[in-house]
This record gives sequence, C-alpha cells and structure tokens, in this order.
Amino acid sequence: MNARQPEQLPLTRSSVLAAHDVIKSRAHRTPIFTSSSLSAGITAGNNLYFKAENLQKGGAFKFRGASFNLSRLSHEELQRGVCTHSSGNHAGALALAAKERGIKCFVVMVKIDAVRSYGAEIMFCEPNAPARAATLAMVQARTGATFIPPYDAINTILGQGTAFLELSEQVPEKLAAVITPVGGGGLLAGTALAAEGTGVRVFGAEPAGADDCARGLEEGKRREDVDANTIADGLRTPVGVLNFPIIQEKVERVIVVSDEEVIEAMRLLWERLKLVVEPSSATAFAAVRNPAFRELGIKGPIGIILSGGNVDMSKPLPWVVL
Amino acid sequence: MNARQPEQLPLTRSSVLAAHDVIKSRAHRTPIFTSSSLSAGITAGNNLYFKAENLQKGGAFKFRGASFNLSRLSHEELQRGVCTHSSGNHAGALALAAKERGIKCFVVMVKIDAVRSYGAEIMFCEPNAPARAATLAMVQARTGATFIPPYDAINTILGQGTAFLELSEQVPEKLAAVITPVGGGGLLAGTALAAEGTGVRVFGAEPAGADDCARGLEEGKRREDVDANTIADGLRTPVGVLNFPIIQEKVERVIVVSDEEVIEAMRLLWERLKLVVEPSSATAFAAVRNPAFRELGIKGPIGIILSGGNVDMSKPLPWVVL
Repeated sequence: MNARQPEQLPLTRSSVLAAHDVIKSRAHRTPIFTSSSLSAGITAGNNLYFKAENLQKGGAFKFRGASFNLSRLSHEELQRGVCTHSSGNHAGALALAAKERGIKCFVVMVKIDAVRSYGAEIMFCEPNAPARAATLAMVQARTGATFIPPYDAINTILGQGTAFLELSEQVPEKLAAVITPVGGGGLLAGTALAAEGTGVRVFGAEPAGADDCARGLEEGKRREDVDANTIADGLRTPVGVLNFPIIQEKVERVIVVSDEEVIEAMRLLWERLKLVVEPSSATAFAAVRNPAFRELGIKGPIGIILSGGNVDMSKPLPWVVL
Repeated sequence: MNARQPEQLPLTRSSVLAAHDVIKSRAHRTPIFTSSSLSAGITAGNNLYFKAENLQKGGAFKFRGASFNLSRLSHEELQRGVCTHSSGNHAGALALAAKERGIKCFVVMVKIDAVRSYGAEIMFCEPNAPARAATLAMVQARTGATFIPPYDAINTILGQGTAFLELSEQVPEKLAAVITPVGGGGLLAGTALAAEGTGVRVFGAEPAGADDCARGLEEGKRREDVDANTIADGLRTPVGVLNFPIIQEKVERVIVVSDEEVIEAMRLLWERLKLVVEPSSATAFAAVRNPAFRELGIKGPIGIILSGGNVDMSKPLPWVVL
C-alpha cells in the first residue's frame, strides 16, 4: 500500500511543533491527572503526571495524527475523501476527523471489529493482512480516497507527537522522563521526536504478548510480524518501518510487562484516577511500576501518556474475571 | 446526636460564597466535561455540562463539606479531632481532610463498609441507626472529637453548595438548569442555596428505590425513614431535617428514575465521558434523559453534578450482570 505523503516534513521536533500549531484548534488539549497515592506507590517517589488522551476526541490520541494528516491534504484530495484499515482507535479517529471536516471516510474492517464509525462508510474483509490490503486497494481504486496509515507514516507520527508537547507545557515542573505504550510506534516515535533536545528521557512500554519492538531493539533489527497474545488490543500490531529506526535511535528502552501487570495497573488507574482507560494505556503505567523501570534510578517527575479509553463495556472487567 | 455548629452562618448564597473562599485552596476545582453525543441524545438538544466531582479529593463532592466543617473548628476542637458515621464517601472525605490538616479522625462504620480510611481510626458497629449513634456517642465521650454530620448540618450543606459555584463559573454560557442526586440532601440543598437569585432552575434526581424526598415533597412533609432498595448506594439515606425544607422551598422538582435507567446512564457516562462514576452520579444524568424531565421544556444548557466515583471494582459492572 502506498501511503501518499504530499509535501513531506522532516522527522524533527520542529515538525511536531508545526503539527501542533495546526491541530491544536481541532484536538482537545487533554488534562493532566496526578495522584499522590499512585505516585507514593513508586519506589523512588517520583511525581507521576498522566496525560489523559483517553479524553481526546474519539477516545484516544489517534485523533492527533488523523487531524494532522487531513490538514496536509489538498482541496481535491479532501473532496475524494480518505480511507484506512484499522481494528481500532485510528479508524474511529479518522472517521471523526473526517466528519468534522465534512469529508468522506472509508474504513476497511474485519468482521470482528466493533469500532464506532462516526458515519464512515464501512467495508468488511477477512481478518488477515492480504485481504485487508486488497480491500483497501479496491476502495482506493473506486473512490480515489487517500490512505491515511494508522502509524507508519510521517504525518501520523508528527501528529501523535503533539501530545508530549502539551504534556511538558502542562506539567508544573521539568519532566525527567516520559513513557508511552508502543504498538505500531506512532505515539512512541512521535514522542521521541517531540522530546528531542529537551533532556527528557523517553521510554516505551510493551506487553510481553506483543513485544516485537523490544525484541527488535535487542536484535538490532525490526521484526516484521508479531504473534500477538495480549489483553492490550491496541498494541498487537508490529512496529512500523518508519517508526522502528526513530525508536532505535531516540528511545532509551522499551520495558516489557506481563498481562497481569497491565491488568493490575489498569485497575489502579480506574480506581484512583476515576478514568476509564484501555489496557494499552495501562501498559505504560505498569512499566513504571515494574522493577526494570525502577532500576533505571530516574529522579524527578515522570510523564505517562494514557493513550486511550475505548473499552468494550459489554465484557467483564479483566480483574473480575481473574 | 448533637451536631456542634460553632458560629453558625445563615443558610444563604452568600454563605456558600464564603464557604467557597475558604475551601477553594484545599479542594480540587474539578473539571467540566461535555459530550456532543450525550447532548444530542437529549430531545431538546440542550448542551450538557458535567461537573466531575468524581475527580474531587476522596472521589466525591463530600470533601467540600468536610473541609468547610473543619475550617469552622477552633484550635482546641481541631486538637481533639473529629468523628463521624457513614457508610461511604463522607467518612472517606472527612478522614482525608483531617489527614491533610494533621488532626485525628474517628469513623464509626458497620462491618460491611469498605471505605478507604486515609488513616482514620475505625470503630465498627452493628448495621442499624441506634447502634451507630451509641457507638458514635461513646467515641465522642472518650475522645472529645467533634461530630461532623454527613449531610444534616449547616456547614456541610454550605460546603457542598460550592460545587455549583464553580460549575456556573466554568460553563461558558448561562445555565438554564442544574440537577444533582439527592440522598441526605446536602448537595441538593447546598446547590439550591448557591443558585438562589441566579435564575438557574434547580432539580433533584432520586432512585425509585429510595424516593423518600420526592414522596415527602408530594405529601408536604419529610419522610423520616426510607426502605431503600437501589443500586445507588450513596442515596439510600433519608433526606435530612435541615435539608428538606430548603429543598421544599427552592428546588423545582425531584425526578424519580428506575435502577434500570440509572445503570443505562452510568454505562453511557463510562463509555462516552471515559469517567468512572458511581450509580448515584448516574442518577442525575438518568433524570435528564427521563421523559418527565424533557416535559419541563427547559431551553438552554443544563449542569449535571457527577457526585462521585467510588465504585467497588471487585464487583461485576451492573450492566454486564443484567
């Protein structure tokens, strides 16, 4: 699939700043949450600042990348509409961003997906990568819609990085570190770019059941697929081609956590912050609570990006099942 | 039980303003949430503004009344500490407010309660009113602690009313109406006082399984007890002696909703606002969605006070059980 990227910006902090200038009137400036009890639970007593992207439009940070992608399209392209495949938050975000601009959006989904469509036109396909690519190509051929990739694209990465810019403005002290979950790597690569030159150390968090990024970093080579088995449904994708080298160069470490740790962290966030966050978001907090993170000996405040809050509420809470 | 109320303030809007001046440095100024999809779900298309007191310290608006009560105590009284009985948010709020000031707090609880104590000294008693009163009297005799009532006291009512003052400041347009849940009536009576002279119409919301306030208003006389059977555990108490006449005089109507409506509203708030709110909070939103409310024909924005977010997360979600 060829991701059209007209007038490409360089992958730098300045480009993230430029992206933020463009999207800030469209995306929510999500609030920061703190909790003295959660901060006290961390050995080093670091102040924790949670950036609540679960409160972003569409319920996840993905609206940032979707918005920025749309802002880069020509009038003609906007008229033809946009399309994507995604089993989750990106599709919802793109559909919502398109709806707000009054343009068409086509989404290729596998039958089991249950994303809110915000009025997008939905095409279903079989749950495998070739079927998805073929269906998407068909949609593009029919409609001329521009494909907006969920993570593996410059504008998507730049857009996602804007959450960090806000976080560091909103936190009343200088952050020592920031951590985000990593699935395709849009948020983590964007954050790493946005943090460049600021002295803020950047970390990723990945569930053990989809740890292709951490393994790839160890092996010095991106893994092309992932045999995903984790509750963190937003993180089941392999890290992207564009995303991996950025992470390799600019991210200090990706911490791997078990699903049990993710579930425990998720419950704490629901109970203490009173926020509905999805397992992917809890992965970042779980990593901060993990001994591997504590051993880094970070002194000072830590920013944690809570990536989204789209949870299937018809299912039992994971800790109640346990 | 004699609730000591040194230097009583009059039950007026000015007193609520004075209470706010005192507590605003101690309580969180909780944020306002909006949702175009939830607003669109209301027939008249009123903009809805949710005041997120579930994000208040201790997870409920009760911290406001607790804080204001403490501010009215003498140095000597503070040294002797405070005490209360409560099966829920008031005890937690008082314990937290006391902890922040470094004073002692004694809480009488029935064995089944599971409130977070924030370091308070807990005394258990049998689950009936006489046992609770006797245990509390014993605590007071032993410690000299001042009893801080959960709702039936001037300073508690004035403190709770401060949430409305913030709400009306935070909303970017003039509110047409405000609605809060009613259990003991601290929040509703305080809100009614705070709204006096502002032109904002005030409503209450009560679950059918504990509708003593609505019945009392119909009958023109406060009901002294309530045979409570509702999921909204924060609203199972009868409306207070001080609270009822304020509500009678200043609240336009108390809307009664079924537990099914409460559960549906709660799920919508969790799914769309991404906020963990307890059933009591959802009662107010359920009332706004009820035909009885719609028939009032209110034009303009409606403020909804989400009273708290303390949910027992070890239990299944109520809509999953259904």
